Amino acid sequence: MRHILLVLAAAAAVVVAGAEPVLRQVTDFPTAVSSGVSDADALFCDSWRLSVETANAGPWRTVPARCGASVRAYMEGERYASDSAVAAAESLAFAAQAFASGVGGAMPAWVFDVDETLLSNAPYYAVSGWGLQEFNETSFDAWVDIAKAPALPSSLKLYNELQGLGFHIILLTGRSELQRNATEENLLFAGYHSWEKLILRQISDIGKTAVQYKSERRAAMEAEGFKILGNSGDQWSDLIGLPMATRSFKLPNPMYFIS
Amino acid sequence: MRHILLVLAAAAAVVVAGAEPVLRQVTDFPTAVSSGVSDADALFCDSWRLSVETANAGPWRTVPARCGASVRAYMEGERYASDSAVAAAESLAFAAQAFASGVGGAMPAWVFDVDETLLSNAPYYAVSGWGLQEFNETSFDAWVDIAKAPALPSSLKLYNELQGLGFHIILLTGRSELQRNATEENLLFAGYHSWEKLILRQISDIGKTAVQYKSERRAAMEAEGFKILGNSGDQWSDLIGLPMATRSFKLPNPMYFIS
Repeated sequence: MRHILLVLAAAAAVVVAGAEPVLRQVTDFPTAVSSGVSDADALFCDSWRLSVETANAGPWRTVPARCGASVRAYMEGERYASDSAVAAAESLAFAAQAFASGVGGAMPAWVFDVDETLLSNAPYYAVSGWGLQEFNETSFDAWVDIAKAPALPSSLKLYNELQGLGFHIILLTGRSELQRNATEENLLFAGYHSWEKLILRQISDIGKTAVQYKSERRAAMEAEGFKILGNSGDQWSDLIGLPMATRSFKLPNPMYFIS
Repeated sequence: MRHILLVLAAAAAVVVAGAEPVLRQVTDFPTAVSSGVSDADALFCDSWRLSVETANAGPWRTVPARCGASVRAYMEGERYASDSAVAAAESLAFAAQAFASGVGGAMPAWVFDVDETLLSNAPYYAVSGWGLQEFNETSFDAWVDIAKAPALPSSLKLYNELQGLGFHIILLTGRSELQRNATEENLLFAGYHSWEKLILRQISDIGKTAVQYKSERRAAMEAEGFKILGNSGDQWSDLIGLPMATRSFKLPNPMYFIS
């Protein structure tokens, strides 16, 4: 078989009961998996983390208590950096090949999520339990306003390489329009520049899941003529839903889940 | 937000040039990612493995040479067993809840892939390089004929638990109809029984990707009245494509890629 072109697309039908004005929506039922072996936490927690990254885990609210130390070690150590770097390298390998083949046409685009994709909120999660505690919108918004989240280094590198190739860079975030100034300031502080658009949630998006909101915005991009070749995000809800990018790249994030 | 029901679906449009009579189709362009650090193989290979499991890696033909020892250690050690067990536990947690809620109606079904899902071909890969060598259809088919692949223990447990709940179990494999007898014999040898259907590739499926072939068969199941609540497979090509199961569960497999 010489050439295979896979065009993958996903549709999401979403039923929401009791829409509340939260920007990050975390659902109710945690996943309960336990092992009787006392010293098996490290093994279990690595497997739990894999199940999160492959979307097996389904909706969850907090990191399992026994995995708090493991998630912290992962985020602070070389593994998170390595996993992020390999995701970026796979992204660039695809991008260079896709760009060279001209499949993107006149307006080849790459969509990036912001939190835990372009920017790292590790300084915030370091003082709020690395995902062991439920998401606190008030304290997170205060952190956003400080506008000092560092870049995820491998994403900054990829961002610059994609711009060098000629991609239009579109940032699509679950952050609110009210956080535009802080977000722009933070992105510039972290070294990002010259994005084509920064799309944030509007009042009319309140109550929508990330999948619904982001899918609608990708559809609007395509209607404007952008060909979305790639999409980078740390949540599956950044990546699934119609229309999908030609290729989607899942960045690691064992700290929280957004539906 | 109290209740969220996410119904995810994916469509796959597939263009195939130069169809060849292979049952496992491996595509051309490998992913090239390298690190200059000499002692970083373990770190890189774990990240490469994550990129495979999250579908970031894209089509690849063989395990990177530097990761041969790492993949072998993964498959032979407790990590593969643990990762598989957590995937099964997540599957059962969802299945029990979905079954109890009655969303499956009269014919709730669970679809299982066979190779590296119900059956482990580790004994074959142990003598053929753990994925370092390209797939050899001749030797693999000879191994299939022996019909002595053991069960993946966590999958056998899940299989029995799902039958206990009342699920209809449908097996959907890329193996050929010519391998039906050997496959049935092997499944029984490994401890599986009472499946509803065992679906294998027909002559008319030659040249189709796994995504296309398996999507068509899932559509046929739905037309027959089955409600596919869950789908377990070690390849993304087992899981994506319309119609999708309500929830899909990715089992680990760092040894080969099927598109």
